[in-house]
Amino acid sequence: MTETPATSKSSGIISGRVQDLLDKYRFSEPLHVTRPTLPELDRYTAKLVEIWRTRRLTNQGPVHDALERNLARHLGVEHLSLTCNGTVALQFALRTLDIDGGEVITTPFTFPATIHVLHWRGIRPVFCDIEANGFNLDPARIEALVGPDTRAILAVHTFGIPCDVAAIQSIADRHGLSVIYDAAHAFGVRVGGRTILDSGDLSVLSFHATKTFTTIEGGAVTCSTSRQKSRVDLLRNFGIAGEETVNEPGLNGKLNELQAAFGLLKLETIDAEIEQLAKLAAIYRKELAGLDGLSFSEPMPSIDYNFGYFPILVDVNRYGMSRDQLYATLKRFNVHPRKYFHPLCSTISCYASLPSAHPDILPVATRVAGQVLCLPIYTGLDPDDVVSVCDLLRELPGAYIRATESIEPHEAPRWRS
Amino acid sequence: MTETPATSKSSGIISGRVQDLLDKYRFSEPLHVTRPTLPELDRYTAKLVEIWRTRRLTNQGPVHDALERNLARHLGVEHLSLTCNGTVALQFALRTLDIDGGEVITTPFTFPATIHVLHWRGIRPVFCDIEANGFNLDPARIEALVGPDTRAILAVHTFGIPCDVAAIQSIADRHGLSVIYDAAHAFGVRVGGRTILDSGDLSVLSFHATKTFTTIEGGAVTCSTSRQKSRVDLLRNFGIAGEETVNEPGLNGKLNELQAAFGLLKLETIDAEIEQLAKLAAIYRKELAGLDGLSFSEPMPSIDYNFGYFPILVDVNRYGMSRDQLYATLKRFNVHPRKYFHPLCSTISCYASLPSAHPDILPVATRVAGQVLCLPIYTGLDPDDVVSVCDLLRELPGAYIRATESIEPHEAPRWRS
Repeated sequence: MTETPATSKSSGIISGRVQDLLDKYRFSEPLHVTRPTLPELDRYTAKLVEIWRTRRLTNQGPVHDALERNLARHLGVEHLSLTCNGTVALQFALRTLDIDGGEVITTPFTFPATIHVLHWRGIRPVFCDIEANGFNLDPARIEALVGPDTRAILAVHTFGIPCDVAAIQSIADRHGLSVIYDAAHAFGVRVGGRTILDSGDLSVLSFHATKTFTTIEGGAVTCSTSRQKSRVDLLRNFGIAGEETVNEPGLNGKLNELQAAFGLLKLETIDAEIEQLAKLAAIYRKELAGLDGLSFSEPMPSIDYNFGYFPILVDVNRYGMSRDQLYATLKRFNVHPRKYFHPLCSTISCYASLPSAHPDILPVATRVAGQVLCLPIYTGLDPDDVVSVCDLLRELPGAYIRATESIEPHEAPRWRS
Repeated sequence: MTETPATSKSSGIISGRVQDLLDKYRFSEPLHVTRPTLPELDRYTAKLVEIWRTRRLTNQGPVHDALERNLARHLGVEHLSLTCNGTVALQFALRTLDIDGGEVITTPFTFPATIHVLHWRGIRPVFCDIEANGFNLDPARIEALVGPDTRAILAVHTFGIPCDVAAIQSIADRHGLSVIYDAAHAFGVRVGGRTILDSGDLSVLSFHATKTFTTIEGGAVTCSTSRQKSRVDLLRNFGIAGEETVNEPGLNGKLNELQAAFGLLKLETIDAEIEQLAKLAAIYRKELAGLDGLSFSEPMPSIDYNFGYFPILVDVNRYGMSRDQLYATLKRFNVHPRKYFHPLCSTISCYASLPSAHPDILPVATRVAGQVLCLPIYTGLDPDDVVSVCDLLRELPGAYIRATESIEPHEAPRWRS
């Protein structure tokens, strides 16, 4: 992070009150949206000793298999296949369901990988708007988008908040569609004590370093049947079934032993980490309660969340600053939230000309992408820092002078090409 | 490895002479075709200390960038992009050249990934036979296969033996085709002191654990231009060019910091390792010289090889045992060579019906796939063990009784589906 002096020429004119706040609140170390917590290096090295002894480094080795078993048990799923990242997991999920063309109904409010995978499989994404009071696909808008080429619904449990899986399944059943969940954010999420990962035909997880549970890079497919798992297992190893047997065109989706060992140690601490995150989220909710113009979701008691994200929506008219103004201003305080998921995937140049990509028919997603901001939350984040961020969010609008050149103008949310 | 007692029921009748050989030559530890040499764990852990301190685990971090620079320097190429495996590197190479359909002329004598990647890009492979006295694409047979849909030639420097790049380029130039080299085996290979990686438009490397230079899993694209490298760099990170800019549909092809650190240490010892391999290969050549029915390539003085493989061809009529008989018999001696690349990719069910896949028009590849055997070669392999394997290869045919049930019958080389 480059330190930008608050009074530098490039930062323009600062009102006296903002300068006071900078003196009071500016963090000396950058506060990122997330930061991985690593297992103790000694314990990790102890795992490496065994790998070094056997010299077994990859190709579904014993550490990999142990992680696969332990993860399935931890998550409460019967069939789980590890992969080297979540993107390839989604590629394999689509192929396991033999979806290799036609259309898939999905959300524009997601990380680009969700949509890019469709593109690489030769599938046309059909964007569907999100719920008025949430971040997930709106089931009420799905059915109107089903056409003769529709093959599946690809929904995302955005920020780990469960989709309305019953409503989605009922639409899929009526039209004979497959359902895949991008559960990249939904590690360990349970509804009524039951894993969200057994919804739909297949779910896909990401274990990227930004995620609560991580294998540095990594991912998994959770399957409804052992037959599906066998297919994913084949696909991640080039379709090779035996020394002289190749069953189908697979790719390389293998997670290696060093990353699996990292995952095994992370799994030991994941419950305690999620507990920590829950406490940080509770502080955010308590401190931001009643702050006009910043809204956030209240957790539902029947759901176990992982609290990997703390998204807020910024209403410029009530808060007094736009999301982009707030974002730019927070950076000066060395606070680095992220605008997940702005811009919408439907605005990426290669998708923007699709009929379903027009902002007019994606009004909620378009509004939310312009208002959303994910605040810093990760294990190891000091609760006092969370309180300071909330204090800052409370004091900023009063100090913020709209006329200063120091704040970037609000721009329409668009991916540029 | 399961130990099979030489006299077990399942192994059938053994002639007295084979039993004598088993007593004399059977290895107590399995001798695999290859085995990775790991950097010293203390030195690796020292690298991890720094990664643990910064908590930077992936997304083109400083260790990744250092490996990219050092590798480019070591290999003598200007532009190199690391990837998480060689398969995704080949996917990006094709997309960087905008090859996303039509036909690509390639070899059936390769690891399935080469061909599967074409399938996943919607490209029809057109199989071309290999050279009569080698393992690589036969340039004399390429031109007849060029048609209106031909987009590129995808050649493989099989076992690190350079293709006839001049002849291939001249055909490509005449027909306006791109040329991609699958250089998975060709790490560090130079012709007349010049890297083989600057042939064609792009080359693709694999750093899988079975390779001489390894990052456990991993790969790279070497590019002719900085523009191509920028494209690969975009593709491996979801096409993301900036926090609010996605230029095109990419995937996740990122190599993480832990694997990059492994690669940095491997790079320090790679020259010494290749020197060791050269000595082992020289022992094989010396000991097998004049042994009727087993043939191998003689290295050319103008070429720097990496000696990652030691392939031999078994002529059943002159040697007295078929390749499959030899392979099965060696396993009893706890020697585990591999039949790279049998069966041919053209026999995999999803490709077998292509007009170019018929064995009659791939006579050389079909014969070579039925005769080839890659013998154990890796750093750390005891030169005395190489001598023992050669002694065994010399004595086996005399002791081998064709009538015993103990030897599996020779089967036609086919991938089963």
